[in-house]
Amino acid sequence: MLNSTPKSRLVQAIRSKQSFLCVGLDPVPERMPEGIEPTVDGMERFCLEVMRATADHAVAFKPNLAFFEQYGSAGWAALERIVAAAPEGCLVIADAKRGDIGSTATCYARAFFDSLNAGGVTVAPYMGADSVTPFTAFEDRWTVLLALTSNPSADDFEFHGEPPLHEHVVVTSQSWGTSDNLMYVVGATRPEGLRHVRSLAPEHFFLVPGVGAQGGTVREVAEAGWNADCGLLVNSSRGILYASSSADFAEAARAAALALHAEMREICQERGL
Amino acid sequence: MLNSTPKSRLVQAIRSKQSFLCVGLDPVPERMPEGIEPTVDGMERFCLEVMRATADHAVAFKPNLAFFEQYGSAGWAALERIVAAAPEGCLVIADAKRGDIGSTATCYARAFFDSLNAGGVTVAPYMGADSVTPFTAFEDRWTVLLALTSNPSADDFEFHGEPPLHEHVVVTSQSWGTSDNLMYVVGATRPEGLRHVRSLAPEHFFLVPGVGAQGGTVREVAEAGWNADCGLLVNSSRGILYASSSADFAEAARAAALALHAEMREICQERGL
Repeated sequence: MLNSTPKSRLVQAIRSKQSFLCVGLDPVPERMPEGIEPTVDGMERFCLEVMRATADHAVAFKPNLAFFEQYGSAGWAALERIVAAAPEGCLVIADAKRGDIGSTATCYARAFFDSLNAGGVTVAPYMGADSVTPFTAFEDRWTVLLALTSNPSADDFEFHGEPPLHEHVVVTSQSWGTSDNLMYVVGATRPEGLRHVRSLAPEHFFLVPGVGAQGGTVREVAEAGWNADCGLLVNSSRGILYASSSADFAEAARAAALALHAEMREICQERGL
Repeated sequence: MLNSTPKSRLVQAIRSKQSFLCVGLDPVPERMPEGIEPTVDGMERFCLEVMRATADHAVAFKPNLAFFEQYGSAGWAALERIVAAAPEGCLVIADAKRGDIGSTATCYARAFFDSLNAGGVTVAPYMGADSVTPFTAFEDRWTVLLALTSNPSADDFEFHGEPPLHEHVVVTSQSWGTSDNLMYVVGATRPEGLRHVRSLAPEHFFLVPGVGAQGGTVREVAEAGWNADCGLLVNSSRGILYASSSADFAEAARAAALALHAEMREICQERGL
């Protein structure tokens, strides 16, 4: 596609599917369903089946690197096959939360964008511009920067100072990329925080974890964070992956994704997307 | 050894070698010396030769994950062999700067401590306690937490607020581990910052990058950060790795490590360690 950007492609996918669902692939060994061994091979099969079963309802998949790295190089090899098998038209975000500087950060960008061929990668802001611009230099891929996360101890540092650190991160980092290729992680568990970050970054996409198990709802997220392009990728991991612990896990994952999709379709229609 | 801790073992190694040198393994493809291909195999051979050549002068090695991950699963497999070949008695710190929460962080800890069998891993503090305590729960390994880094854009966020974020990180995080297994990254390029962080964490070890190419000297670091146990691991990467671009690179690396070791031995003697 001529002149397309990561953002224009994502908006197109959201409009066409009427979904802004990202399925998080966090294969916890202890939670593998009946018939799936808690091994690297079992985990690969599990992810591939969930991805296939939910492809009609999601616009993105987000494998979390930790669950693959625990198996070392064999885990990375499985991840490579999973990313290569991602459904056509779906964005893959490597949830790696990398944060290093200069040429080291460029190596990480190459690892995820060139070697793994992911469409996006999550990045941590602690070390500043040196740790973010080597990723945004890849203009055709998403840099997904941590801002306000959904975990309880986000309070430890993300609210430090005045303005709170996460607001300072969102404001300062906007010059390090454009809304075409820079997205922020903003948790669903703090709708008032989401609303405020939206006021600071009206045109950026947000990757929103924390819906479902962690307590946020899709409707609350849309009310707090929707923009003219939707501007939201709502992630669900465990509510989909572990919808059933039996052999029907893929079917149950599909049903869980469909339920979120139905809610999202309704919101897209209400908002005329 | 009965009742040993990561700290007691490191202090023992430093006393015995009269060195507090950590050799950073950052194999930049573009800088591979004569006779070493810029491939994953070449990079592995390069790291193994540098490690062997500098083993007498270093107490630790710090492979940076980015340079391995750029080769995907093949890079991880090479890293596994490199860590397995580390000289006896030398600490291996996986410079991974991971930062994720809860069970995800536990998977990263397993990846580095169990699967890779590294003695330590670098961790980023942005997400707070949830992203650090799963690492410090491994009491027999080092959690090496980013505090004040040596890069120019450290100013973007690490100095945000009052007290500056990095000081808040050092003070807050001390209850998440003990000085026996929690170390901080404190750059050599800001001796006044190093001195201040030392006043906040008198008993902790610091991993100190930024000596050599980035401008700090070993003596300045010792003056600002020495404590009763030495308390310092000074890292040098490029000054050792790329001491020569010819076929004599391993010999040149050894000479560069020896020069730092000589300086460290003098300081250890002056300070009666």
